[in-house]
Amino acid sequence: MNVNGQPTRTVWWDKNQLHLINQPLLPHRFETIVLRDHHQTADAIRTMVVRGAGAIGATGGFAMAQAALSAPNQGFHQYMAEAADVVANTRPTAQNLFYAIDQVLQAIQAEGDNPERARNAALACAQSIADDDANCCETIGQHGLELIAPNSRINTHCNAGWLAFVDWGSALSPVYAAQRAGLAPFVWVDETRPRSQGARLTAWELDQEGVAHAIIPDNAAGHYMQRGKIDLVIVGSDRIAANGDVANKIGTYSSAVVARANNIPFYVAAPTTTIDPKCPDGSHIPIEERSEDEVLYTWGWSDDGCFQRVRTAPTHSPARNPAFDVTPAELISGIITEKGIIEATPKGIAQVARSN
Amino acid sequence: MNVNGQPTRTVWWDKNQLHLINQPLLPHRFETIVLRDHHQTADAIRTMVVRGAGAIGATGGFAMAQAALSAPNQGFHQYMAEAADVVANTRPTAQNLFYAIDQVLQAIQAEGDNPERARNAALACAQSIADDDANCCETIGQHGLELIAPNSRINTHCNAGWLAFVDWGSALSPVYAAQRAGLAPFVWVDETRPRSQGARLTAWELDQEGVAHAIIPDNAAGHYMQRGKIDLVIVGSDRIAANGDVANKIGTYSSAVVARANNIPFYVAAPTTTIDPKCPDGSHIPIEERSEDEVLYTWGWSDDGCFQRVRTAPTHSPARNPAFDVTPAELISGIITEKGIIEATPKGIAQVARSN
Repeated sequence: MNVNGQPTRTVWWDKNQLHLINQPLLPHRFETIVLRDHHQTADAIRTMVVRGAGAIGATGGFAMAQAALSAPNQGFHQYMAEAADVVANTRPTAQNLFYAIDQVLQAIQAEGDNPERARNAALACAQSIADDDANCCETIGQHGLELIAPNSRINTHCNAGWLAFVDWGSALSPVYAAQRAGLAPFVWVDETRPRSQGARLTAWELDQEGVAHAIIPDNAAGHYMQRGKIDLVIVGSDRIAANGDVANKIGTYSSAVVARANNIPFYVAAPTTTIDPKCPDGSHIPIEERSEDEVLYTWGWSDDGCFQRVRTAPTHSPARNPAFDVTPAELISGIITEKGIIEATPKGIAQVARSN
Repeated sequence: MNVNGQPTRTVWWDKNQLHLINQPLLPHRFETIVLRDHHQTADAIRTMVVRGAGAIGATGGFAMAQAALSAPNQGFHQYMAEAADVVANTRPTAQNLFYAIDQVLQAIQAEGDNPERARNAALACAQSIADDDANCCETIGQHGLELIAPNSRINTHCNAGWLAFVDWGSALSPVYAAQRAGLAPFVWVDETRPRSQGARLTAWELDQEGVAHAIIPDNAAGHYMQRGKIDLVIVGSDRIAANGDVANKIGTYSSAVVARANNIPFYVAAPTTTIDPKCPDGSHIPIEERSEDEVLYTWGWSDDGCFQRVRTAPTHSPARNPAFDVTPAELISGIITEKGIIEATPKGIAQVARSN
C-alpha cells in the first residue's frame, strides 16, 4: 500500500538484507531498518518493531533464511533447529510465525544434506511466504468487498491493516478494496489500548490511503453500536482454532459480544495461514501476558517532538496486561479468507485450512 | 477517606472559602486549591478540576452559596438566576449539579426578600448537600456490603470512589466497607480511557485505603469476565432515568453487556440525588461530547517529573469522544442507594426518588 504515495511493503529482502518498517516510530516518523542476522530479527519480533500476524510470519520466514545463510555446512541442520527455537520463542500466540518456521524447515529438509541448495531453498521459501501473504490479503479484500455497501460505517479493533501483514492487510483489505471501488467507506478506529495500534497504525494507514475515519476510545465502540452508527465490524486474528474460535487483540471478545447484542455483523478477516488445525478450540490458545508498564504508561510524542512515555497510574499500583482474548466461534458471522468467506465452524474451517 | 492517613473530603468550606482537591494532579501530586467566587468554581467544574457526580453536586451547591454571598441586595434574585445559569452550563450530564442548584435556589426563595437571611440559607443548604452526600455514600457502603462475599473480585469502571463524591464514594463505598470488615476484596480497575480516571483516581484511592487491586486496560475486563476472574461489577452513575436506565462513563454499557453474557451481577451504586424523575428513559439523557484531544493525546507524568501530554495518533486523524453512554435498565442487577438496593425498574426508582 502507499506511504507518501509510494507503494511499500512492511518487510522485504533486498541485496541479501532484510528490511522492515520500524513500526514503533509510527505514526510520527516513517523509517525503515536493516536486520543483519536471525538474532537481530528475532529481537525485532520480540520487541514488536514488527507486529501483526502476517508481518511476523513473513519476518520469521526471512529470519530462518538468514539463519540458513549463516549456518555452517558442518552441523547445518542442528544450527537450523536451534535457530527455529530462537525465532519461535519470541511471541507465543502468533500462528503465522510457527507456520513460516515450519515451511522453511520443510524446504530445507527437502534438500537433504546439501546446505548450499538448502540455503537457496530457505530464501526462496521465505520470499514465497511473503508473496503468498500479500496475495492472500489482496484476495481477502476482494472477497470482503461483497459485505460492504456504499457509505458503510465499519468498526475495527487493533491494526489488522497492511502494517500487520506484508501488504493490503486482513481486516482493512476489504476497506481498501471498497475505497478503490468508490464506495466511500468510513472506519471507526478503536484506539486499542494499551499499545494503541488502532490510534497509531490503523489511523495512519487509513490516512495514507485517503479513507475517512475517526479514532475512538475502545470504550466508545459499544455506544456507537447501540446508537446504530456501526454497520459492520471487521477484525483480524492471531490464531484461529479448528472449531472457529478466534484469538485476537485484547478487547475483540467484548466487541463481538456487544456487536451480537446489537445484531451487528461481526467478521474476522485472516489468511488461512492463521488457522491452527491442531488447536481444537480457543481454550488451547496460550494468552500472552505482556509487561504491566504498557498499561501503567503511555508512549507517544511530546509537544516538543520527543518520543517518550508518561505515567498515568499511581506509583504503587500494579497492572495486568493480557495481550489477546478468545472470541467464541458462535459470535462470529463469518471468516473472510483468501479462499472465500467461510463459517466459523469446524466444517467451515476444515474446508480451507492448510495442513501443516 | 484517608490521604496519607488523614481523613479528607474532596470539597469543603472553611473560613468563608471553598477548598477542593486539585484532581487533575492526582495520582502524582496531592494539592488543594481555593476558589474565590462562583465564576472560578464554575470553571473548576467545567475543566474537571473537580469531577464525579456527588463532588460536582456539592461544588455546584457551594458555587451557588458563593454567588449568594457576593450578590448585591438590589437585584439579588436576578443575580442568583444568572449565577444558576453560569453554574449549570458547565457539564451537561450531571444530574447532581442541577439538583444542588435547585436546592440552593429553593432555600433562597424560602427567605423571600431578605438577602441577608438568603445568604445564610444558601450556605447552610450547600453545606447540607455536601454532608448529605457524604452520609448517603457511607450508607450505600453498608447496603452494598451484603453483595460482597469474602475475597470477592470486583470490577469497576471509571472513578465512582470518594473522589467523585464528598466522601466514601458510590461504587467503591461497598468495597471500603468490605475492606474495613476484613473481607479482603480485590478490585479490577478499568483504566477508563480517554481520561484514565480508573488508572489515576480509583487506583490511587484504593492504594491509600490499602485495598488490593490491579489496573487493566478497558479491553481486558471482558476477558477476565469470560475467564471467571470477576465475581461482581459495581459502577457509579451520572444520571438515572425514571425507568432505571443509567448514564455513566463511556464504556459502562459494554461492560454491562459482557457481564450479562457471562452471568456476572452488574450493580450501579448511586445516591438518590442521581435519579432524575423527570427523565423518562435513557434516550432523553444528553450525551456530552468532549474535546477530541482527550483521545488523540494522553496526559501523565514524564520520567523526569513533568506533567505533560504525548500524542499517540497521526497528525491528520480526527477523533470522537462521547463522555457517557446509557446502560439499559434490563442489564442492571440492582441499584445500590442510601435507601437500600432497589430494582432498576420504574417501580424500584419511584420508591426512592427524591421529588425535585
